[in-house]
Amino acid sequence: MYDIIIIGGGAAGMSAAIYASRGGMKTLMLEKTACGGQAVRTYEVDNYPGFFNAPTGEELSAAFEKHAMKFGAERVFETAREIKNPASPVKTVVTRKNAYDTRAIIIASGAEPRHLGIPGENELAGAGVSYCATCDGAFFRDKDAVVIGGGNTACEDALYLSGFCKNVYMLNRSKRFKAQKTLLDKVFADKRITVYTDMIAERFEGNGKLERVYAKNTETSARGFINASAAFIAIGITPDTGLAKQIGLETCERGFIKTDMYLKTSIDGIYAAGDARVSPLRQIVTAAADGAVAANSAINYLNNR
Amino acid sequence: MYDIIIIGGGAAGMSAAIYASRGGMKTLMLEKTACGGQAVRTYEVDNYPGFFNAPTGEELSAAFEKHAMKFGAERVFETAREIKNPASPVKTVVTRKNAYDTRAIIIASGAEPRHLGIPGENELAGAGVSYCATCDGAFFRDKDAVVIGGGNTACEDALYLSGFCKNVYMLNRSKRFKAQKTLLDKVFADKRITVYTDMIAERFEGNGKLERVYAKNTETSARGFINASAAFIAIGITPDTGLAKQIGLETCERGFIKTDMYLKTSIDGIYAAGDARVSPLRQIVTAAADGAVAANSAINYLNNR
Repeated sequence: MYDIIIIGGGAAGMSAAIYASRGGMKTLMLEKTACGGQAVRTYEVDNYPGFFNAPTGEELSAAFEKHAMKFGAERVFETAREIKNPASPVKTVVTRKNAYDTRAIIIASGAEPRHLGIPGENELAGAGVSYCATCDGAFFRDKDAVVIGGGNTACEDALYLSGFCKNVYMLNRSKRFKAQKTLLDKVFADKRITVYTDMIAERFEGNGKLERVYAKNTETSARGFINASAAFIAIGITPDTGLAKQIGLETCERGFIKTDMYLKTSIDGIYAAGDARVSPLRQIVTAAADGAVAANSAINYLNNR
Repeated sequence: MYDIIIIGGGAAGMSAAIYASRGGMKTLMLEKTACGGQAVRTYEVDNYPGFFNAPTGEELSAAFEKHAMKFGAERVFETAREIKNPASPVKTVVTRKNAYDTRAIIIASGAEPRHLGIPGENELAGAGVSYCATCDGAFFRDKDAVVIGGGNTACEDALYLSGFCKNVYMLNRSKRFKAQKTLLDKVFADKRITVYTDMIAERFEGNGKLERVYAKNTETSARGFINASAAFIAIGITPDTGLAKQIGLETCERGFIKTDMYLKTSIDGIYAAGDARVSPLRQIVTAAADGAVAANSAINYLNNR
């Protein structure tokens, strides 16, 4: 019987493991593939406070992993497929091979940015192609950048980048934008931002790092390319919350888990942390803080039963 | 004219400086004394995720400071004494010597745990005497610990410590407890916790580290001591929010600044981060996350004006 089971071994899950096991709880962390989550695939992490030498995502994740295991947390590389008796004091997390009983659960299953699925995207990810302007924008000071998308995030990214990039090109697949009007007005008024409508990216090209974005006008079928050092894909983010939905946790319309300030979900004894929850910002440091808060709340919940 | 002025140079303020300056904002951080906030006075920080070798508070703060200055943020060692025109698009932060104009403000002025003011307290702080069980409790596995206070935090601390300490002694100055009843019932039911009422701590003693807590019964005037390696003082925490009150920011009844999820306060363009705000947990990692969120929200606010 575990005190706390953590589902997911990204920054949020590993931080939760530190706080839960250091707090004397018998703790198990379940991770599907390898610890680190999205951070592992980041070339350089320049903004996790304290790591001022910009470690690679792998280096930072390895440091988190050492820390997560330091206080006796257990870890298995298994996928949580089901949560039985979620509302009972003893809940069961089922994997293909095992079933683990626990008194509290922290869901830190993360999220995945939507991909375009076009040639060059995977090859140049982390080498100019990025899914997070707040994370990687600053690497492209005085360079040309492309933003792909037409929602609030795409607009915020374009405005953010126009503060220090030379030129920003925004490609939206239609004439309609999902972004709110005030934000869009700001984008159109910004002299450093050029907006192309009816434009889809078809291919990323470059020798080891991004150099050109090939695009096509869907109305005229005209093709062309933009010279750019960076392309920020902002077409949405999908939380990995199938398990949460299965047990009926409250989510927002986009599928992210709703929590209160203490990261408690709509079911007693179940907490959510990191990218999978409704959150104001998705960064390694916010995921790490979430893990600490969720573990602390779970500990108080268990001590107060 | 600055884009963002950050008031306070602790973990929250320094993280805000990283995110604001890296986001291309002209950023100024004001710090009264020395950067690092409460963390500087911590002997060993064992739970800031990624720093698995338990740096001293000074080492971790120095790493934050290097990081905070890396992207061009400016810093002055001055005390913000007044905010003029807080609700205007251009606000002015006034110090004794200067007045700085800015378009947004992040208040990260921190908080201070209340001290007992008894002999040995300052001398043994960080050497057994602590104000944070979540931070330092784990250093005292299988040792005896004293908790001083009778509120919710004192009870949560006692229950937390009873998970791995040998014995926990809780001293409350009267027969009345401020803590909620369910929590208190749990404390009284816990066999590892001994509760003393009408008991005040008078002196901490030890040779380089805490060894004994001297206490006095206020009813009988009987004096005695408890052998203990750790004493956790949980008699409250006071936010440094004079400035916030001066400009009429909404606070809770204990004086902490109220924010929404994006860390926006009740005044446009003013954000709060770290220990000074109403918060579910006060740790270095939560302060750092707050700084990132507040800076990101301020950037979006400025870009959207």
